[in-house]
Amino acid sequence: MKIVFIGSGNVATHLAIAFKAMGADIAQVWSKDSRNAELLAALSKAEPISKWEHLDLHADCYIICVKDDAIQDVAVQLSEVNGIVVHTAGAVSLEVLHGCGSGHGVLYPLQTFSKSKSVDLKSVPFCIEGDRQETLETISAIAHLLSANVTEVSSEQRKILHLAAVFACNFSNHLYHISNELLKQHHLTFDLLKPLILETAFKVQSALPLEVQTGPAVRNDSNTMEEHLALLADTPEMQLIYQMLSNSIIRSTQ
Amino acid sequence: MKIVFIGSGNVATHLAIAFKAMGADIAQVWSKDSRNAELLAALSKAEPISKWEHLDLHADCYIICVKDDAIQDVAVQLSEVNGIVVHTAGAVSLEVLHGCGSGHGVLYPLQTFSKSKSVDLKSVPFCIEGDRQETLETISAIAHLLSANVTEVSSEQRKILHLAAVFACNFSNHLYHISNELLKQHHLTFDLLKPLILETAFKVQSALPLEVQTGPAVRNDSNTMEEHLALLADTPEMQLIYQMLSNSIIRSTQ
Repeated sequence: MKIVFIGSGNVATHLAIAFKAMGADIAQVWSKDSRNAELLAALSKAEPISKWEHLDLHADCYIICVKDDAIQDVAVQLSEVNGIVVHTAGAVSLEVLHGCGSGHGVLYPLQTFSKSKSVDLKSVPFCIEGDRQETLETISAIAHLLSANVTEVSSEQRKILHLAAVFACNFSNHLYHISNELLKQHHLTFDLLKPLILETAFKVQSALPLEVQTGPAVRNDSNTMEEHLALLADTPEMQLIYQMLSNSIIRSTQ
Repeated sequence: MKIVFIGSGNVATHLAIAFKAMGADIAQVWSKDSRNAELLAALSKAEPISKWEHLDLHADCYIICVKDDAIQDVAVQLSEVNGIVVHTAGAVSLEVLHGCGSGHGVLYPLQTFSKSKSVDLKSVPFCIEGDRQETLETISAIAHLLSANVTEVSSEQRKILHLAAVFACNFSNHLYHISNELLKQHHLTFDLLKPLILETAFKVQSALPLEVQTGPAVRNDSNTMEEHLALLADTPEMQLIYQMLSNSIIRSTQ
C-alpha cells in the first residue's frame, strides 16, 4: 500500500504515523509550506514535496488532510493521478473530488486530534464513502488497516455527524474552559473537576445522556439556579450560556 | 466509626456502600419514605428509620444527603445528637447546620452519581469544611476512608466549584443529549460519538481546555458554521445554542 498525504496538520500526522506503523509505504507528504512537509515526512519516512510537479502519480491512495476550504483547490491538482483520492473532512461532500484519480471517496475519522497527544485509532469510527462500490471496498480495506470500526455513511449523514460532534466535543470542551475560568477567578485548581469530567464522559458510554442527566436544571431547583446566575453577574456571557442551557435541559426532560 | 445517613438517594447510596466497604458501621438510614430507608438500609446492613424519635443520638457522624432545600428542616432535628453533623451539598453553606451535634461541617464529593452506575471514589475530590479545627480534622479522617483526594474548601469556594461542575458536567451531558437527538433524527447511532466524547474528556486531564479546543469556531471557519446553522433551521433552540457557544469560543480564543 503506497500512500501520499496532501497536508501535514493534526489529522495528516496522526493518520500517517498510524499507517506507517501498519506497514504502509508513505511515499510523499505534500504541504505548500515545505518545512511542514519536511517535519511530517521525517516522522513517516516519506519524501517531502511542496510543488505539484513533484507529485508521484502512481500511489494507491492520496489522502487529503487540508482545511475544508482548501480541498477544492487541491483536488484540481489530483486529476491526473492513478490511485484513489480521498478527503478526511466531516463537513465536505464527496462531489468536491469529482474527476480525481481512478476513484474518489471519503475517509473521515470521527475523532479530535491534537498534535501533542497520541490517539489509539483502533476504536475510532472511520466513516467512509466512495464514488462506486469498487472504490468503497478499497477505502474500507484501507480504513480497516487502522480501525475495527468502519461504517459507510453518506455525505448528508456525515454532515450531521460532524455537526453532532461539534456539540459533543468542541462545545463540551468549551464548557470545560468556562469552568476552568470560573475556578481560576476564585483561586481553585482545575484538577478538582477532572474526575467529574471523566465520569460524565464514561457514563454515556453505557447509558443515554438523557437518562443520566443530573444537576439543578433537571431537578428544576430554581433556588440554586438563581444563586448561580447571581454568581455569574460579572460575566454576562457565562450567565447567558447558563440560562440557555438550563432552560434547554428543563424543556428536554419535561 | 458509627455513621447515620439522613437521606437515601444517589449520594447516600454511593457513600453508604463505600463506608460500609471500608468497615464503618452504618447504624441507621433515615428517610421520610420508609420504603426508601429500607432499601438502602438493606444494602448497608443498617436500621431503617423514618421517624425522628427513633434516631440514634450517639453515632460518630450524621451525614445529610437530602435535597438542598430540605437540609435546613432536617438540621433542626439534629440539634440533640452527640456526633458530628455534615451535609454533602455543593451549593449550601456551612451555617445552615449551626447548632447541630457536637460539631458541624461539609463533606462534598465532587462527582456525579447515578444509582445504576458504581463510581470509584478513591480519586473523587472530597471538599471538606468544619465549624472549627477539631471538627475539620475528624471530617478529614472520615473523608480519607473513601478517597485520597481531600481538600479544605470554604463555603464560598464550594459554591463556585458547584457552579463550575454544572458547566463541566451537567451542561456537557446535555450537549451529548443534543448530539444524540441530531443523530436520531437522521437514523445514526450515538455509538459513533462515544470514542470522541471519551477522548475529549481524556484530553483535558493533561492539557488546558483552551489549548486543545478544536472545531469550526476556533478556526473561525464561517462557511462551516453557516452550513451548521442551516442544518439546524428546524430546531431553533439548538441553533441558538450553536450560535452562542460558537461566538463564545471565538471570543475566548482571540
